[in-house]
Amino acid sequence: MEMNGRFLAACHRAPVDATPVWFMRQAGRYMAEYRAIRKKYSLLEIVQQPELAAEVTLQPVRTFNVDAAILFADILLPLQPMGVDFEFSKGDGPVIHHPVRTQTDVNALRPLQPDETLAHVMDAIRLLRSELGNTPLIGFSGAPFTVASYMIEGGASRDYKITKLMMYSAPGIWHTFMDKLSTALAEYLTAQIRAGTQAVQMFDSWVGVLSPMDYETFVLPYSKKVLDAAQATGVPVIHFGTGTATLLPLMRQAGGDVLGLDWRVPLDQGWQAVGHDRAVQGNLDPVALFAPIPEMKKRIHDVLSRAEGRPGHIFNVGHGILQHTPEDNVKAAVEIVHEWRIENREITNL
Amino acid sequence: MEMNGRFLAACHRAPVDATPVWFMRQAGRYMAEYRAIRKKYSLLEIVQQPELAAEVTLQPVRTFNVDAAILFADILLPLQPMGVDFEFSKGDGPVIHHPVRTQTDVNALRPLQPDETLAHVMDAIRLLRSELGNTPLIGFSGAPFTVASYMIEGGASRDYKITKLMMYSAPGIWHTFMDKLSTALAEYLTAQIRAGTQAVQMFDSWVGVLSPMDYETFVLPYSKKVLDAAQATGVPVIHFGTGTATLLPLMRQAGGDVLGLDWRVPLDQGWQAVGHDRAVQGNLDPVALFAPIPEMKKRIHDVLSRAEGRPGHIFNVGHGILQHTPEDNVKAAVEIVHEWRIENREITNL
Repeated sequence: MEMNGRFLAACHRAPVDATPVWFMRQAGRYMAEYRAIRKKYSLLEIVQQPELAAEVTLQPVRTFNVDAAILFADILLPLQPMGVDFEFSKGDGPVIHHPVRTQTDVNALRPLQPDETLAHVMDAIRLLRSELGNTPLIGFSGAPFTVASYMIEGGASRDYKITKLMMYSAPGIWHTFMDKLSTALAEYLTAQIRAGTQAVQMFDSWVGVLSPMDYETFVLPYSKKVLDAAQATGVPVIHFGTGTATLLPLMRQAGGDVLGLDWRVPLDQGWQAVGHDRAVQGNLDPVALFAPIPEMKKRIHDVLSRAEGRPGHIFNVGHGILQHTPEDNVKAAVEIVHEWRIENREITNL
Repeated sequence: MEMNGRFLAACHRAPVDATPVWFMRQAGRYMAEYRAIRKKYSLLEIVQQPELAAEVTLQPVRTFNVDAAILFADILLPLQPMGVDFEFSKGDGPVIHHPVRTQTDVNALRPLQPDETLAHVMDAIRLLRSELGNTPLIGFSGAPFTVASYMIEGGASRDYKITKLMMYSAPGIWHTFMDKLSTALAEYLTAQIRAGTQAVQMFDSWVGVLSPMDYETFVLPYSKKVLDAAQATGVPVIHFGTGTATLLPLMRQAGGDVLGLDWRVPLDQGWQAVGHDRAVQGNLDPVALFAPIPEMKKRIHDVLSRAEGRPGHIFNVGHGILQHTPEDNVKAAVEIVHEWRIENREITNL
């Protein structure tokens, strides 16, 4: 079987027969098949058992004809091996019982050694490579800032006050922490690549809470370390964030073959900010996947039109698929993307 | 006593002796004096009693030497007179028991008639004008999008899914709703101006979740209606939002003498996007008010430097002051802003 080349070609800005499409969080609660598995296992039980993680990863690939699979995992998986316990509380997201706030907390963090302590992730990757056939597999990690924010705040946050205050009041602790964390995340991503992922994505989901100035001083060097390590392997690397309109030129500097865009920036404007010598991924508002099909189609066509037929566009949502998204709409969205050709371009008036 | 002219002059882009400064949510929980009052009264009890609302409004003016007072109130006050009940649940923010979701819900909304149904707000304004002496008073309302999002979602939201889906799936209902709501908010703001506020601010706090395209189609005309009505009175009008880097040119089109900027956009870059023929307000990250004074000062100086001595800058935080902000830092911040002169400008390296 020949490898589905669209996704990987687009990462390298090579011409493709149709725009490749996959969806962040394409495996998950909106799928009935996934919910059936979740009745028996917790999220962490699934990711800890390679067969289950592989099965859940494969569900959307079988159902939707997407051009890439993304490993089912969680950006917080490296925490436990580093000595930071957490659990998923019902409805409230992750809870870290002893947040990282002092130099002592940072000193206590253990090196990751992903091949030993996250062997189940590497096993899931190897299993998936043998089962995926011609669909490429994307691995991923969180970015240093986003992972650090969970570790410092103790969970999700609205204002990231404790995280920013570590930068502003204790920059020495911050930089030591980010240095250790970025080393761990670089090793995690490169271990995934050695195990067989054909591309990786670094999720800096919450970086949009920072000013460009803070990003440059406190985040960029550490994101760059992770991205550089992943890019050195030769596989395509996707650098993703949300609310990043003012950060895109700096995120480009940090690295990545592909820059993720959310829906707050029109794709053409975002690509301009990133530079046309990089590929881009995005950027449908995930809520549009709930709209009636003709409305959803108009919105997908708007995104595709803004790519202007330029090689190097991977279609995706601007952030993860939401719970309750209708599966039929996801299926229709993939078809709409694959059927679209630049010559079909119309001026859309939404 | 002569009116403190700095704030109003800056709104009109006239030269000032020092940059004016006030803080969004400058009256509130971070102040010990406020917490003492909240031990006896709920938030809604305070806003419903003009003497209490006036007292709470005056607290930061007495304590911090700010250049403007902002009426203590809540953007959801117009809901009850329109027939939509809500309460503030402990810790979770507002809860609207019967969200507005159908054409029937929209049809049931009552016109606001603010002079009758929100007479206590107008009484608080009149009382404040007699007590404030030479400090100008700012009135405010929520913007149609932000207020609608609470009414539709039933409270705060992370993804604004139900709100966006009304736009995408039931645009007729959305437009009728926004038309009614913007009429009500325009009447609310103009009633506050008649009662004596010398400026008003329209808070579109959550508008940054929208793409520019959705903003233009579903929000701009209604924000414009409110802003036009307020501007027709002749008092300065401030148009505020967060996460608006890609929306600023459209927000300018919607209106306002002053455009609010949050910290995600450097002030010089934001002012460029807004146009130098408008004033701007902002844009310190509220978390910076927790930093050690030298670090806070560096960050305040950075904001001030980016105004480049151009008339028409009002110093403020990029979003409301956070709970637990040290009062001493707020006091120091006001002094730092007032002492700053363009000739003191230094290149800051954060």
